[in-house]
This record gives sequence, structure tokens and C-alpha cells, in this order.
Amino acid sequence: MNILIKNVHVITGDANNIYIGINNIAIKDDLIYYIGKKIPENFIPNKVIEGKESIAMPGLVNAHTHTMMVLMRNSADDLTLENWLHKNILPKEKNITRDIVKSGTMLGIAEMIKSGTTCFLDMYYEMDVVAKAVLDSGMRANLSYGLMTCNQWQKGHEYAKAFCKDFHNEYNLANDGKLKTSVEAHSVYLCDETMLRANATLARELNSSIHIHLHETKFEVEESIIKTGLTPIKQCLKTGVFDVPVIAAHTIWVDDDDMMILKEKNVTSVHNPSSNLKLASGIARVPDMLDLDINVAIGTDGAASNNMVDMFNEMRLASLIHKGSTLDPTVVNAATTIQMATYNGAKALGFENLGLLKEGMKADLILVDTSCLNNIPLNNPASAIVYSSQGSNVDTVICNGDILMEHRELLTIDEEKTIYEARNAAKKL
Amino acid sequence: MNILIKNVHVITGDANNIYIGINNIAIKDDLIYYIGKKIPENFIPNKVIEGKESIAMPGLVNAHTHTMMVLMRNSADDLTLENWLHKNILPKEKNITRDIVKSGTMLGIAEMIKSGTTCFLDMYYEMDVVAKAVLDSGMRANLSYGLMTCNQWQKGHEYAKAFCKDFHNEYNLANDGKLKTSVEAHSVYLCDETMLRANATLARELNSSIHIHLHETKFEVEESIIKTGLTPIKQCLKTGVFDVPVIAAHTIWVDDDDMMILKEKNVTSVHNPSSNLKLASGIARVPDMLDLDINVAIGTDGAASNNMVDMFNEMRLASLIHKGSTLDPTVVNAATTIQMATYNGAKALGFENLGLLKEGMKADLILVDTSCLNNIPLNNPASAIVYSSQGSNVDTVICNGDILMEHRELLTIDEEKTIYEARNAAKKL
Repeated sequence: MNILIKNVHVITGDANNIYIGINNIAIKDDLIYYIGKKIPENFIPNKVIEGKESIAMPGLVNAHTHTMMVLMRNSADDLTLENWLHKNILPKEKNITRDIVKSGTMLGIAEMIKSGTTCFLDMYYEMDVVAKAVLDSGMRANLSYGLMTCNQWQKGHEYAKAFCKDFHNEYNLANDGKLKTSVEAHSVYLCDETMLRANATLARELNSSIHIHLHETKFEVEESIIKTGLTPIKQCLKTGVFDVPVIAAHTIWVDDDDMMILKEKNVTSVHNPSSNLKLASGIARVPDMLDLDINVAIGTDGAASNNMVDMFNEMRLASLIHKGSTLDPTVVNAATTIQMATYNGAKALGFENLGLLKEGMKADLILVDTSCLNNIPLNNPASAIVYSSQGSNVDTVICNGDILMEHRELLTIDEEKTIYEARNAAKKL
Repeated sequence: MNILIKNVHVITGDANNIYIGINNIAIKDDLIYYIGKKIPENFIPNKVIEGKESIAMPGLVNAHTHTMMVLMRNSADDLTLENWLHKNILPKEKNITRDIVKSGTMLGIAEMIKSGTTCFLDMYYEMDVVAKAVLDSGMRANLSYGLMTCNQWQKGHEYAKAFCKDFHNEYNLANDGKLKTSVEAHSVYLCDETMLRANATLARELNSSIHIHLHETKFEVEESIIKTGLTPIKQCLKTGVFDVPVIAAHTIWVDDDDMMILKEKNVTSVHNPSSNLKLASGIARVPDMLDLDINVAIGTDGAASNNMVDMFNEMRLASLIHKGSTLDPTVVNAATTIQMATYNGAKALGFENLGLLKEGMKADLILVDTSCLNNIPLNNPASAIVYSSQGSNVDTVICNGDILMEHRELLTIDEEKTIYEARNAAKKL
């Protein structure tokens, strides 16, 4: 389908050239065909969107989440990690069924689309169920499956490996390339050296990236050093995990040596500010990582520790928190934050030609309303996106050239049914 | 008017008893007449609201703002304080006219109502213009006028004093008591000892409270010690400022001595987390203040440093930031945060019978939608308010028994006209 968006403020996703003024955007099938002041000759749009009161920007990339956990939001707050995990989350997870994962994932996907996310990286159980929900929704996603997931490992290494390969073969590059798969190595505290090596080997064989939790808590790092003499990052280095592309969630308690390893091995750090604050994990050294040109992306983490999956919250918080904690108001500026939440995430998740509004890129973009009270006056559009907009200001969401939401109405998901099923599923946890 | 809200989740505003289940709320004129499972006999409602998919809670109290500054949002971000203030904000403020203040204030009031605020404390220029906007809107507010404001002081002490007294006489307790006035003593860095004493005397004469910026930056405290040998808080103690009720914005860089003075003199500390982070002022010692039973309220500060006036943002941030910076996930829990944003603010602003959903209290309350994706499943309503709700989820706003917003439509403000006038006013800055 050809879509023409007229007279829209354009935020590019490239921090060095974040705002390029009011333009027309022509979309041809799944690609951005033209951005400029004119309308290309011979471009016959099937649909024209008047962008006058909107900002167009790349769809947001939620680079670390456990989507299904929206079902556990507001159920375990203001608790120590011990109480949160062992007395609340794990007991609930014992009740999980494939139907519950399906309902929760669809609820989370609906919330993500409504708040401007077009692409996400997911790690949970029953990932084939997650994959089917993603296919139904029309979103783009990278889904992580690992040797430990669903206890396949306990059935033997070869069984687990075959299981992961089947998942990869079925879903990697499915749906016009909108789906990708990656290998989950949950964390160094749950994966011993053998398991880390096995996941690394699997990722190499599948030409996949690895998705891992890394240096989330001070305790995790200290425990690893006591047990192995190495920080988790150094364990990953030793076991070959970093010889494939790695998407590492959190990376909070990193010393300078650890950080240089992330840099040298091109590891992406995913910053999850709401979750890191809420669980009192700590405040990541994001300004230092940006200074080193480490690829930093942004994620919501699961809603059990957020309690939303709204990337606008995370952008605002990612930009504010480091100014306050370093006492430097110039760090993590609006343009950088937008790039982290779009292009850096797309790159981390292994999608090519994604995350920028630029001719030839994939047509994943959102329109943010600037006629709402909180965006008046608009002044600087990049500032407006990070500091004065909310997920609820997203009017239209386009993914791979398809419209997923128009004027806040979901087109690929039955919102009422999703809510009904999610409420029922939540009761079973 | 009699209003009956049926079957609504009730959040009280009292941290010790924050959620009291699903109830009916009967409002008679300006007061909460009944909360309970029944409907009072002989109560004939003029209006019935079905609360089934809502949480009712006290209207939010924005305890420190400069409302008009919404006109400067997104205009000066990611800058050093020097660049922000001297190269951006002050030059804009030179262009201010009474018409610009009027348009900006009305825009800010509209944004506050739409995000659930029913009462605020304001400090700016041309406060009589602000007062008229508040009267038109039907909101509750405490408006601060001081001897320095609008350079009246330069015309002589007696002239300035008469000016302030006139303002007080005209607006204090106006509009059925919905307006109050207080004395502005901007800050210790702008008020010398004579001015502090004069403002304290004026406040005593008028039986008013004082509204002041205090210990916002490290530099402010260090400079005060160099100049006077005293911290700003100790200067206030010495000059009699603390002999009247004081609402002190920020109070970030306080040592234990300063904190004990705040405690002993019953000073309210207003926490402004977005602004404090964004300007890199620092992170206030809120958990310590709460431990000492200091009255801590919450404010948005002006939108030039926020960039919104949405108290839902501030509640979420107030709760998250201290968990992350103290590494204790149990501090500033959801119930405490709600009390800070409602009852503690009402108490600070000098309004009696305000800030709690309880029989006999003023009928300032809001209904928050729980049928939106981000509040499903609801699980814990107090958590939902702080961690998963947004200003845009506020459906209905009632102030003093009058409906200011219903199903997100403003009833006392012409939203379209407000936006039109604000956009024009912003161009003149």
C-alpha cells in the first residue's frame, strides 16, 4: 500500500540530525520511499494522512521486556527483591499455562502499540505462543529462546538444542522478516559455565544474537566473583558468549574493565530505568557508556517491575535520571535519548534498515499528536517527544508499511476481547 | 448539587488506610456527605456517575509551580543552569505582559485539570491575573505574592506592602474559600536579610504562610554560607521566616541540622522530582524527611524545567527515584506517595478538610479509568495510581462539588480557545 503523510514534523532517530523540519513522507509497501518538501511524481497514494498537528518519528524499539508479565503489574510493589521474586513472581509463574501466556502477551502487545512501540525483544516461557501473538498483531519482534527455557535442558542437551533449532527455523525471518529469533542465556547466575558455552555455540550455529541479563544487581556481581573469581561480564568473555552479537539488559554494576569489554565486543547495553529504580537495582552508568560509543538501547523490562510497557515513560526517565545523579544537566540529551529508543534498539535486535526516518528504511513509524495541551506550545520537537509527550499522545502507528493503529484505534487487535481475556487470565495466576 | 458515584474503588489519601474497597460516594454541595456500601436514605442525587471501571481518589495537589511557564516548555532543555536561566528563561520573561500571563496560566490550569490536579500553589508575576484565571476555571489554589514581586519593592517598602495587602484582601478566601493567598519570599539568594524579615512580618500580619525556594542547588547553600555564615535554612530561622507556616520548594542539599530545623518549625518540603533531575539540582533526601515525619508534598515546578504540569508523572518519579538512589525498594511506597500528592499538599497550602476522601471533607476528587490497557489487570489500586496510571487516564475531575471535567471534556474552560491564545502568546516570548 502507498501512504502519503503530508506536512508532518520529522524526527529522524539520528541524534546528529534529529529534527529535519516539516516534510511529506511517502511510503511504498514496506519502505520509506521519499521524505521531502515535494510529493514524488507518479506516486499515487492509497491513503493520505494530514500530518499538520503531528510529529513523525521512527517506531519505538523496546529492547528488553517480558511482555506477558503485564498480567502481574501492580501485584508486587515496594518489596525487597527477595519478597518480590520468591514470594510473589515465582509462585505466580508456577501457574502459567500456554493460554495465560497468550492472553498476557496480547495485552502487552496492545499496550506497546498504543504507546508507540513497533518492535520489541522478548524473553519468556512458551515463546512459540508469543511468536503467534506477534504474528497476529503485525508487530516486529526479536524473540529469545534458550537451552534452559521451559526446562528443556533437563531432558538432555540434544533434545533442548533440537527444540531451539526448531523454534529458530520456524520463526526466524518469518512474516516478511518482521520476526527474528535470538538465543536466551538468561543470566550468569542461572547459567553455569557449561550452559553459557552451550548457548554461545548454539547462537554461533544459528547465526543468532544472545539475549542476557547482565550485572543487574550488586549482589549478582559480588556472588559471581566469589564463585568464579570473575565478574559476569568476564565470565561471558571467557565462555565465548561475547563472540556473537549480545544484547545485555541492565549492565548497572560495571567497573571500567567491564565497560571496556562491552565496548570491545560490541555488546549492546539495554537501559531499563523504571525497573532498575523500582527494584532498587541501581542507576546504570549510561553517560559513561555513551561517551565510549557503546550501543545503548532502552527497554521497559517486564511490567511486574515497571509497571507499564510504555517507552515514552522510559525515554523521559532515561534522560532525567542521569542528569540528576551526575549533577550535569547536559548528559543524555533529548536527541540521544530518541536515538537510543529507536535506531540503537533496531541495530541491537539485528534488524537492518530500521530505526531511522530516511528514504530506503523500513516503514516503521509513529505519529505523535502535538495538538494536546501538554505539547502546546511545541517549541523544540525533540524535547517535546522526550520531556512533554506521553504514550497516550501517539495517534497512529505504522509497522512495515501497515497501519496498526489509527487515531488510537487498534486495527489488528480486538482491544475489548484482549482486555476480557487478559482479565480472566490474570485471575488464574 | 448532589452527586452520587456508584461502585467505585476508593483511595483515601491516608497512607495508613489507603484503599477501602468498592463504595458509593455521595456528594452534597461542596462536601463529601457519605462513603460506604449503601446509598443514604433521602439522598436525591442530581447526577449519578457509574464508577464501576474507576478509582476515586482525592484531587491532586500541585504544591509548587509557576503555572504560566507552560508557555516556555521544550524551549530550553539539556542546558547548564547558567544557559537555561540567563540565556533562555530570563530573556523570555522580559517580554511578559499581563495578556501573556493570562493565556499561559489558563493553558497550565487546563493541563492540570486534565491530569487530575484540583489545587495548586502558584508563584509568578502579575498574580492578580493568575487569580482571575483560577476563578474562571473553578480550581482551588493558593497564590503567592511578595514584597519583591513585580519590582514593587523598588517603589518603597510601604508601597509594596500596601500592594500585597490589597492582593490578600481581594483574593484570600475568595470564591467560597477556594482561593487562598500566601506571601512569596522567592529565595534566600534573592531576598537579603531585610527582605526576609519584611516578608516574615507581612506574613504574620496577614496570618498567611510563606512560599519560598530553599536549598535547591548546592551552589545556593555554599554561597549563602560564604556570604552570611549560615545555610539558607538557618537564615530563615534567624529572620523569623519559620515563625509562620512555610512551604519550602526543593530542600535538596540539607544536612542533618537543617533537617531538624525543618522538622521543629513544621516546614513543609515540596519535592519536585522532574525539575530537580532535569536541572541537575540533585536528589532530595525524601526518605529521611519522611522518617522524621516532616510534611513532604509534591509539585511539578514550572514547565520550563519539567516540561509538563502533570502530577501523575511526579508521583511515579517520586516513588521510583528514591528506591534507585538509596538501593532500598521499600522506601516512598505507593500509599505514602499518594498521601504526599494529596493530603500533605492540602495541609501545606492551608486548606482545612481537604485532601482525603472521607465524610465531611471538601468534595475535591478525581476518577481514574481502570479500563485502559495500562491498568489491566488492576490488582492493587494504590500501585495502579502511582506505577501504571497516567494523567491521560483521569476521566472526571470534581472540585468543591463542581464537575470541572467529565469524560475528559473540560466544562469550565474552552480548550480550543485556550490553545489558540496560548500559541499566540508563546510567539511573543
